[in-house]
Amino acid sequence: MLIKNGRIITATDDYIADILIEAETIKTIGKNLSVKADKEIDATGKLVFPGGIDPHVHLDMPFMGTFSSDNYETGTRAALYGGTTMVIDFILQKQGNSLRSALEEWKGRSDNNCVGDYSFHMAVTDFNDNTKKEVQEMIEKEGITSFKTFMAYKGALMIDDRQMVGLMEEVKKHGGLINVHATNGDMIDYLIQKHRGEGKLSPLYHYLSQPEVTEAEASERFVDMANFTGCPGYIVHLTCEGALNAVRNATRRNQKIFVETCIQYLILDASLYEKEDGAKWVMSPPLREKKDQQTLWAGINQGLVQVVATDHCPFKWEQKLMGKDDFSKIPNGHPAIENRMELLYSEGVAKNKITLNKYVEVACTNPAKIFGMFPQKGTIAVGSDADIVIFDPNEKHTLSAKTHHMNVDYSGYEGWEVTGKVKTVVLRGQIAIENNECKLNKGYGKFIKRNKVFQNI
Amino acid sequence: MLIKNGRIITATDDYIADILIEAETIKTIGKNLSVKADKEIDATGKLVFPGGIDPHVHLDMPFMGTFSSDNYETGTRAALYGGTTMVIDFILQKQGNSLRSALEEWKGRSDNNCVGDYSFHMAVTDFNDNTKKEVQEMIEKEGITSFKTFMAYKGALMIDDRQMVGLMEEVKKHGGLINVHATNGDMIDYLIQKHRGEGKLSPLYHYLSQPEVTEAEASERFVDMANFTGCPGYIVHLTCEGALNAVRNATRRNQKIFVETCIQYLILDASLYEKEDGAKWVMSPPLREKKDQQTLWAGINQGLVQVVATDHCPFKWEQKLMGKDDFSKIPNGHPAIENRMELLYSEGVAKNKITLNKYVEVACTNPAKIFGMFPQKGTIAVGSDADIVIFDPNEKHTLSAKTHHMNVDYSGYEGWEVTGKVKTVVLRGQIAIENNECKLNKGYGKFIKRNKVFQNI
Amino acid sequence: MLIKNGRIITATDDYIADILIEAETIKTIGKNLSVKADKEIDATGKLVFPGGIDPHVHLDMPFMGTFSSDNYETGTRAALYGGTTMVIDFILQKQGNSLRSALEEWKGRSDNNCVGDYSFHMAVTDFNDNTKKEVQEMIEKEGITSFKTFMAYKGALMIDDRQMVGLMEEVKKHGGLINVHATNGDMIDYLIQKHRGEGKLSPLYHYLSQPEVTEAEASERFVDMANFTGCPGYIVHLTCEGALNAVRNATRRNQKIFVETCIQYLILDASLYEKEDGAKWVMSPPLREKKDQQTLWAGINQGLVQVVATDHCPFKWEQKLMGKDDFSKIPNGHPAIENRMELLYSEGVAKNKITLNKYVEVACTNPAKIFGMFPQKGTIAVGSDADIVIFDPNEKHTLSAKTHHMNVDYSGYEGWEVTGKVKTVVLRGQIAIENNECKLNKGYGKFIKRNKVFQNI
Amino acid sequence: MLIKNGRIITATDDYIADILIEAETIKTIGKNLSVKADKEIDATGKLVFPGGIDPHVHLDMPFMGTFSSDNYETGTRAALYGGTTMVIDFILQKQGNSLRSALEEWKGRSDNNCVGDYSFHMAVTDFNDNTKKEVQEMIEKEGITSFKTFMAYKGALMIDDRQMVGLMEEVKKHGGLINVHATNGDMIDYLIQKHRGEGKLSPLYHYLSQPEVTEAEASERFVDMANFTGCPGYIVHLTCEGALNAVRNATRRNQKIFVETCIQYLILDASLYEKEDGAKWVMSPPLREKKDQQTLWAGINQGLVQVVATDHCPFKWEQKLMGKDDFSKIPNGHPAIENRMELLYSEGVAKNKITLNKYVEVACTNPAKIFGMFPQKGTIAVGSDADIVIFDPNEKHTLSAKTHHMNVDYSGYEGWEVTGKVKTVVLRGQIAIENNECKLNKGYGKFIKRNKVFQNI
Repeated sequence: MLIKNGRIITATDDYIADILIEAETIKTIGKNLSVKADKEIDATGKLVFPGGIDPHVHLDMPFMGTFSSDNYETGTRAALYGGTTMVIDFILQKQGNSLRSALEEWKGRSDNNCVGDYSFHMAVTDFNDNTKKEVQEMIEKEGITSFKTFMAYKGALMIDDRQMVGLMEEVKKHGGLINVHATNGDMIDYLIQKHRGEGKLSPLYHYLSQPEVTEAEASERFVDMANFTGCPGYIVHLTCEGALNAVRNATRRNQKIFVETCIQYLILDASLYEKEDGAKWVMSPPLREKKDQQTLWAGINQGLVQVVATDHCPFKWEQKLMGKDDFSKIPNGHPAIENRMELLYSEGVAKNKITLNKYVEVACTNPAKIFGMFPQKGTIAVGSDADIVIFDPNEKHTLSAKTHHMNVDYSGYEGWEVTGKVKTVVLRGQIAIENNECKLNKGYGKFIKRNKVFQNI
Repeated sequence: MLIKNGRIITATDDYIADILIEAETIKTIGKNLSVKADKEIDATGKLVFPGGIDPHVHLDMPFMGTFSSDNYETGTRAALYGGTTMVIDFILQKQGNSLRSALEEWKGRSDNNCVGDYSFHMAVTDFNDNTKKEVQEMIEKEGITSFKTFMAYKGALMIDDRQMVGLMEEVKKHGGLINVHATNGDMIDYLIQKHRGEGKLSPLYHYLSQPEVTEAEASERFVDMANFTGCPGYIVHLTCEGALNAVRNATRRNQKIFVETCIQYLILDASLYEKEDGAKWVMSPPLREKKDQQTLWAGINQGLVQVVATDHCPFKWEQKLMGKDDFSKIPNGHPAIENRMELLYSEGVAKNKITLNKYVEVACTNPAKIFGMFPQKGTIAVGSDADIVIFDPNEKHTLSAKTHHMNVDYSGYEGWEVTGKVKTVVLRGQIAIENNECKLNKGYGKFIKRNKVFQNI
Repeated sequence: MLIKNGRIITATDDYIADILIEAETIKTIGKNLSVKADKEIDATGKLVFPGGIDPHVHLDMPFMGTFSSDNYETGTRAALYGGTTMVIDFILQKQGNSLRSALEEWKGRSDNNCVGDYSFHMAVTDFNDNTKKEVQEMIEKEGITSFKTFMAYKGALMIDDRQMVGLMEEVKKHGGLINVHATNGDMIDYLIQKHRGEGKLSPLYHYLSQPEVTEAEASERFVDMANFTGCPGYIVHLTCEGALNAVRNATRRNQKIFVETCIQYLILDASLYEKEDGAKWVMSPPLREKKDQQTLWAGINQGLVQVVATDHCPFKWEQKLMGKDDFSKIPNGHPAIENRMELLYSEGVAKNKITLNKYVEVACTNPAKIFGMFPQKGTIAVGSDADIVIFDPNEKHTLSAKTHHMNVDYSGYEGWEVTGKVKTVVLRGQIAIENNECKLNKGYGKFIKRNKVFQNI
Repeated sequence: MLIKNGRIITATDDYIADILIEAETIKTIGKNLSVKADKEIDATGKLVFPGGIDPHVHLDMPFMGTFSSDNYETGTRAALYGGTTMVIDFILQKQGNSLRSALEEWKGRSDNNCVGDYSFHMAVTDFNDNTKKEVQEMIEKEGITSFKTFMAYKGALMIDDRQMVGLMEEVKKHGGLINVHATNGDMIDYLIQKHRGEGKLSPLYHYLSQPEVTEAEASERFVDMANFTGCPGYIVHLTCEGALNAVRNATRRNQKIFVETCIQYLILDASLYEKEDGAKWVMSPPLREKKDQQTLWAGINQGLVQVVATDHCPFKWEQKLMGKDDFSKIPNGHPAIENRMELLYSEGVAKNKITLNKYVEVACTNPAKIFGMFPQKGTIAVGSDADIVIFDPNEKHTLSAKTHHMNVDYSGYEGWEVTGKVKTVVLRGQIAIENNECKLNKGYGKFIKRNKVFQNI
């Protein structure tokens, strides 16, 4: 395949050239390549990005008595429509059970079902002597090198600081990385019960049960523990100034922590919780304030926020209605897997908040580097997988549940006009998306074993 | 020209491929390119970097009653030997005179004399209504987009905060950048006179006249003024924890400041001032402590230190002896233009302090991006200038004045064993260095007009 | 004299007792003292404070081509009406002249003219080898132990950082203290000229020419220099969050800096500059924002703001009109010497922002301790001067130029209703104020020689 | 009783006078009081302090399978010998039981057994709906206004953050205060088990199991929760820079937290753990480093550390030997109740680290103010309890188990020479200590009901 004359953007570069793909990988990049290809795509006037990588999604996940509504097929297909060629999903250990058994359960749902490429983080919810023995095997045998921890959801997912420090030491020993959901679950549980006790049951109280301090505090604590153990740490879905300041303050002691935010925290705010359909945006952490959006954009440009993901975890309106009388029963999560790349371009690049290179860095390259898929994934370079997005920077269109491909009957961005559109997507040398159609079938998506993680990017 | 089979490193990428050069630029990059080239270089087992860019050098510069000992020919040639294909030198406005007249004076020394490519920063030492009118012209007509300021050297180079803020507003308006030598000149002048008054005249008192606080204070003040005006700012030769913390603290208010350190601050420390030949390392700011080295390496990996330069400003031993009885008469500066790339590789990459990508980022790519030469310079990409270094990562050799090409009769790194050696250097498609010989003549080096600077990298 | 049954408040204590005064000092404090006194005052139901000390006033001061409108008589008399029994005024060295000659000039205006007690700070505006020799003499012979410095008003009062550090070392050597007006004069001069150049001439532009950063920056710089030299430092009229944070941050390196704010910064804000008679509040630094008021109250309770003064520097409306067409010509200053104690009680104690003990601490005791008049002044204790205020905590009254005793034809607090009223004032055993009349004559006020200052309070 | 001619020191004052005591309280203070008293004490040349208050002691406390070796008689008597006239002990709720039942149990041991005055803090180890109801009663009926919480000792004393926030809201509502043992129990438990697992069992590993981060982290977290709830907070036995910096950083958001350190953290350091009898200093938190001592002295002078207590919790050597083979079995605690006042004078005042006023403030007055016994206790003022220490500032003597009165067979300060000696102690008008003899009997000590606490001192 030959992609002609596109403006190629990587995390570093920006130039116009042709890309020659052979089998699954990129063979040559050059001006006016004089080769004959089976398929030629004219990318004149278009941007050519590496395929997006969304390192934070939850597909077909059992949660709060139901399952997230996108399965591995619908989720990875919707991702492709939006220019995301690979996702990393989360396996959740069941407390009392092994990591292995959770892996098997998740494989049962994902194997042969993905359209796009994928990997897993392993969420450790019960760290004990048995779990400890499984860490090395996950990293070295399964290529699962990152371990998710929860500082919230006591009784279900949360580990205490004793387990956290123990896990950090084990993960560090084997070259892995700790991901963390950093909110103070105890404080949140207190506030949820307090609000419920006072009959405050609307979605707004979901927000008010997770004030900034609950995230700032847990982030400080995580950063302290990571510094103590020396284990590489990655804070998922960081939303607010208080939490980012924990990371900024830690730079003074020469510490480095990886930070992920999600597209929604950059562009939506908590005023949505006062709407009648506020349940659509019930997620944890919740949306924050305008000042937090500013902090997050600044953090990206300061190099202190390295990744923009989604925490895609869709629930249909019917599912959301489980909590119509009690915010604490609303399944947490929101659909965005298909929208991330276009929204980040439109709100970030087109509005001059970030450069094109930074866009690729946070949406494609850094996830690949931090999570050990680089240089196979995350860039456009000779030898890398031919995961490519051809993007029209000028085409305007409007997001809507009517047109999206996610298995959810509403959009968190209904009617949002975006500038820039994913036109063609290539995954490992095959056309995935063209003319608004998905050309790949379920099962094409491959599980990507990952390497030990980089500590510095 | 065809460079075969090298391991190509950019600020982002890392892959093995061939590079085809046509005239001055890179035409194609690919696996096993089947083309016929006039010249083929086998880079198997070698690293292939973009040409280094040293954005902080002083060639043939009048200073303290003498001239720095490398002129534009010897300096840019030595740079090429060390893998640096472009430098940015400093024009110094004379107080009372125009920027234009300084530009003419500097052109008189540099025109047709450079072997490697070059540009200039314009040091504004007298900001007044006339100078103000020249700013736009420098940026738009001369392609000189960065303006150096001194917070020290009162009576010669220093401007006060009123001038600083005025210059910042003007530079911002036209899309330029302010560089700053951020040390508190008044405090330093006090300490110099105090030490001299007490008969403390050895090189050690050069160090003790510029304690950390003099740099930390000025950095805080500069950061405050840059925040107030919104003008992009770049701190040159930052050396210490206190100064870097000024930048780190400013991240809390969503501010971004560019930071340059120099190779010597990463690897040498102030204990050298107690040696008999301590004058060799008399530079401003002075070398600091081990803890400062750690901070600077951390700052690089945190993304808060973006550039490693040299502040190359060589003086022969005879010149240094002007201050043999009084540290304040020692010409300030040290030779490093030839050593930067090899030392940073050896001390940084080979000792696992930074990754290969980070190495290229701080030594090649960021200088080009921050100072507006990108993508012409600073990367290996189709369409960019073919400025390329072929580097043997394993060859060990020893630095010495006997073998270096700088016009100075000692080395600040005499006997230092480094791992990794620059083997071949290409500048705009021409072999510059091969078999330890320079193949280019004086005059080949081109003045590079620069674009308005990036604010985010 | 016997004061019966009052509720006596010191910086520490709070109890009901009788106070027996003999000659100028307190002889006995006890329950139901059974002595016969020439004069008995029944203080039942009243608060009994130490006489207030205002360590920051400018009487009969030449400034901006005129003199502040209260002379030593009217100023110290008005102070007594307001419960302030002692003030510290400022002598301003004339650049080029000696400290001694300034002292003589100021004595010429103050000697035999004061009603209340007084001392001087010495403002050093030209630190050179001659001035250096006078420091010790001022401290040891004249009892003038505090040295004021200006980081603003270039060409008139400002010293540069070289002079500052030199002065600090000299003052430290002899056990004195440095006071500082910490605003960045260069930045302010730039903004004044910029605004004037743009025809922005109203009082609002006085405010906009001294933004928070100008004070924050200078405070950081002063704190850095004080830390470097180890000289005790005292920031006068600190107004804002940015400046107080400089002091707070310095606590991390175990540093202590004394901080004074003024009553107006605690209770007025910058919205006044938009009023037609905004010139009344033109002072430097200017009034700030609500958030700054909150910071200052918090700072008092944190123990990081130790003094509440006034910077009393009154000008009549006619004088203020010198700047009716140009804010930069408005004489800077505002009248408050008479209002401080009542306003601070009413806004601070009566509104539960500070305790009674804290009130006495910041308005009476700390000034005496920091500036070396303790235990002669600043407390109610056996052996101390009988400087006493009998205060009705419940009496409400309204501030007005019609009723105040300051020599100025307007009030900055016209119509302000306060809770609490100074009823009787005793100065060194003599009734000063009783029944709204001043019983003391010009010349009663004594110059108080001060001791070397405390470093820790 | 008449105390003649002593130099009376309060937190504010310093003067020479006579003190006349009538019954239990101070009646008159004055120069040359001409009264006839039953008993006259000549205090010429002596210092006269308020009786010391030690707000952190553990007498006759069940802990780790044994009881602290001083009971209420021996402990309060030893305190009197050392100039401490009142202590606050801790009641520990048993998890699953009520506060009331714990109060009864503690009363059973303390009632009629104290020689000196005392009160209790209530340690809440199980906050639930029942406990919640008891808070108000404790404050209003029992005069127990401060509630101790543990962030360590999981399974025995620790509460989680949910309980903490709930308790804070309840305590705030009723005007109380939260005390906290702020160390991260989970991290400590991890490290203890890790060290034990590696056979590292000596007292040094007690220290290494509680690194600075465990205290810094918990202090940050507590400060965050206190800020969120607005509940007054008091950190007990703060030992280190990291923890004090949590408090210092919080000043930036206008927060105030009370901080107590203990005498041992000011003067001893962790090198003792390498001694053979290191078990003597096994306490939690452990002794720290020299830099932490400096921070704590600075914190006192900055006004950010308000109290110096002891955490007196003695165990005999035989009891300490319970852990001779395993540091985790050593009963935690050290004897100091008798030594605090003399050590703080000798190491603080006599070595010019703190002033005399500050000495009284942190050892006597602040504990009384913060915990609601002021002005009855904590000062020398008319109407206050006549709790008085007559102190010879010059007498040197040597601390030793041979001469001390605590019920423990070693001293943590054996052979330590101190400057200054407690000569006479008066408690509520009665001679308690004279000529090295205790004149009071068991049962004289009174339980002091406390008022709602001050928020600002």
